[in-house]
Amino acid sequence: MNHVHEALGVDLGGTKIRVARVTREGVILEKRVERVPKGRDAQLEVIFQNIQKLYSDRTIGVGLGFPGRVKVPEGIALTAGYLELKDLPLADLIRQHFSVPAFVDTDADMALLAETKMGAARGFKDVAMMTIGTGIGGAILFDGKMFYGNGSAAQLGHLTVDPRGPVCNCGRRGCIETLSSGSALGRLLAQTDLDRNIPATELIELAQKGHPVARQVLTEWITPLKMAIDSLYAVISPEIVLLGGGLGSAAFETLQLIQPAGSPWFHSRVAAGTLGDDAGVIGSGLCAWEKFGDQE
Amino acid sequence: MNHVHEALGVDLGGTKIRVARVTREGVILEKRVERVPKGRDAQLEVIFQNIQKLYSDRTIGVGLGFPGRVKVPEGIALTAGYLELKDLPLADLIRQHFSVPAFVDTDADMALLAETKMGAARGFKDVAMMTIGTGIGGAILFDGKMFYGNGSAAQLGHLTVDPRGPVCNCGRRGCIETLSSGSALGRLLAQTDLDRNIPATELIELAQKGHPVARQVLTEWITPLKMAIDSLYAVISPEIVLLGGGLGSAAFETLQLIQPAGSPWFHSRVAAGTLGDDAGVIGSGLCAWEKFGDQE
Repeated sequence: MNHVHEALGVDLGGTKIRVARVTREGVILEKRVERVPKGRDAQLEVIFQNIQKLYSDRTIGVGLGFPGRVKVPEGIALTAGYLELKDLPLADLIRQHFSVPAFVDTDADMALLAETKMGAARGFKDVAMMTIGTGIGGAILFDGKMFYGNGSAAQLGHLTVDPRGPVCNCGRRGCIETLSSGSALGRLLAQTDLDRNIPATELIELAQKGHPVARQVLTEWITPLKMAIDSLYAVISPEIVLLGGGLGSAAFETLQLIQPAGSPWFHSRVAAGTLGDDAGVIGSGLCAWEKFGDQE
Repeated sequence: MNHVHEALGVDLGGTKIRVARVTREGVILEKRVERVPKGRDAQLEVIFQNIQKLYSDRTIGVGLGFPGRVKVPEGIALTAGYLELKDLPLADLIRQHFSVPAFVDTDADMALLAETKMGAARGFKDVAMMTIGTGIGGAILFDGKMFYGNGSAAQLGHLTVDPRGPVCNCGRRGCIETLSSGSALGRLLAQTDLDRNIPATELIELAQKGHPVARQVLTEWITPLKMAIDSLYAVISPEIVLLGGGLGSAAFETLQLIQPAGSPWFHSRVAAGTLGDDAGVIGSGLCAWEKFGDQE
């Protein structure tokens, strides 16, 4: 009986950790959201404590979305710019601790899985997704299947659009993660007399009403993203690019409002994810169902 | 008897047109090379005249590599920055004129096909190729198959790396086609007191001997290409990136010499194509064999 079983989805963000009990249909039964603390041990502790609180004998497995590069077959976190969990065998640690199977992939892959099953990517087979939060993650679906390339592909936050841009966690300059992420928006706001923590929706409203500074901030924030989307179309030409993560809808609305110049050659079809911030945790749960659901 | 049959390969470059009689094994039996004239009618004439000169009743079909975006299923040239053959149904025109089947793809796809069958990409299944000549073309092989995406993918010359760069044929600024192509190298040289037409091999030799201007020109030429290669690895993470076209080897040697900074996250494996300028015409012939060889 499916309804007595559930998967645990864990979505590890640069700022927040979300853990949820998720049904086979992608319904969240219960969700916990906590801030990510500083320090490797504290980060691991908050992950394990929150899994523990939702774990039960109904749990068929754990899916975990990680905000960085992941060696997916081995379930190892390779790098995580905003976290201190480099080189950890996360899937193994969860398996050992809870005696349930676990699967680790990037948070963006998890989010795209959810959008594919029950969100804005339903019906599409070639999709790229950018998840815009503290950083920018990426995921690619080719012919209906998650695309890993020869290792860690789809790191779309590291499309580099400006050689004079800020230094990125990846060691280069001008990756869109440094220019069009939530952190970048915060830095742009800090250079103005606008409140650094103004919600993006309010900032967009201000710009719509003609506020020149709000418009300028949004232009500087969204133009690099548009360049990267055009580059992405030049390389893989997906059916659609989804903008997800906490700021996905805001980025989509800003693109409509500002309409930065692009190339007439590359007609980028862009949409906002429809599952918002829950996409990652739902996708992580659905992923666990996909991998371990038939073992119940 | 295969040896009495042959395919015609046509490689249309931004500067030169190459036509060759090609065996099933990719051996060139005879080749013609001519400069591309100005004007749409003159360009079509030189293409058809040169096909005519090599065409015979042994010809099983024509493969044509086009230096721009191609609607491959219909054989239509969509855009060609350096040529004036926009929106032409090239495959149909060849079919009607010579009564043999014809297939049109991008010149870079043709070159990658040749490198896959008998060059530097042999044994690899996930390959990206940049063809560096007058412009920069691109081709992607996924799982051993040419990748078209949802239309015209693999336009790798239009990875955009600098918002303040020169205006590109595609309408944007700072595409690597404007920064790391042969034309770009010529423009960089023209700003120095070096001969604008110095062969790339000599320029590299000068830089190896410590000539500061030669080194500076090569640094400015190759750094954007390195940025684009890193971006490409972030997106599709191929097994290898091949540098082909007339300047492929020079670009590869320059990368070794200058070693522009990259990202420690993206370990780009790069190699020079081994078929040089003939890759396109050989691949076009091999493509015709693949498509039409069983109809002889």
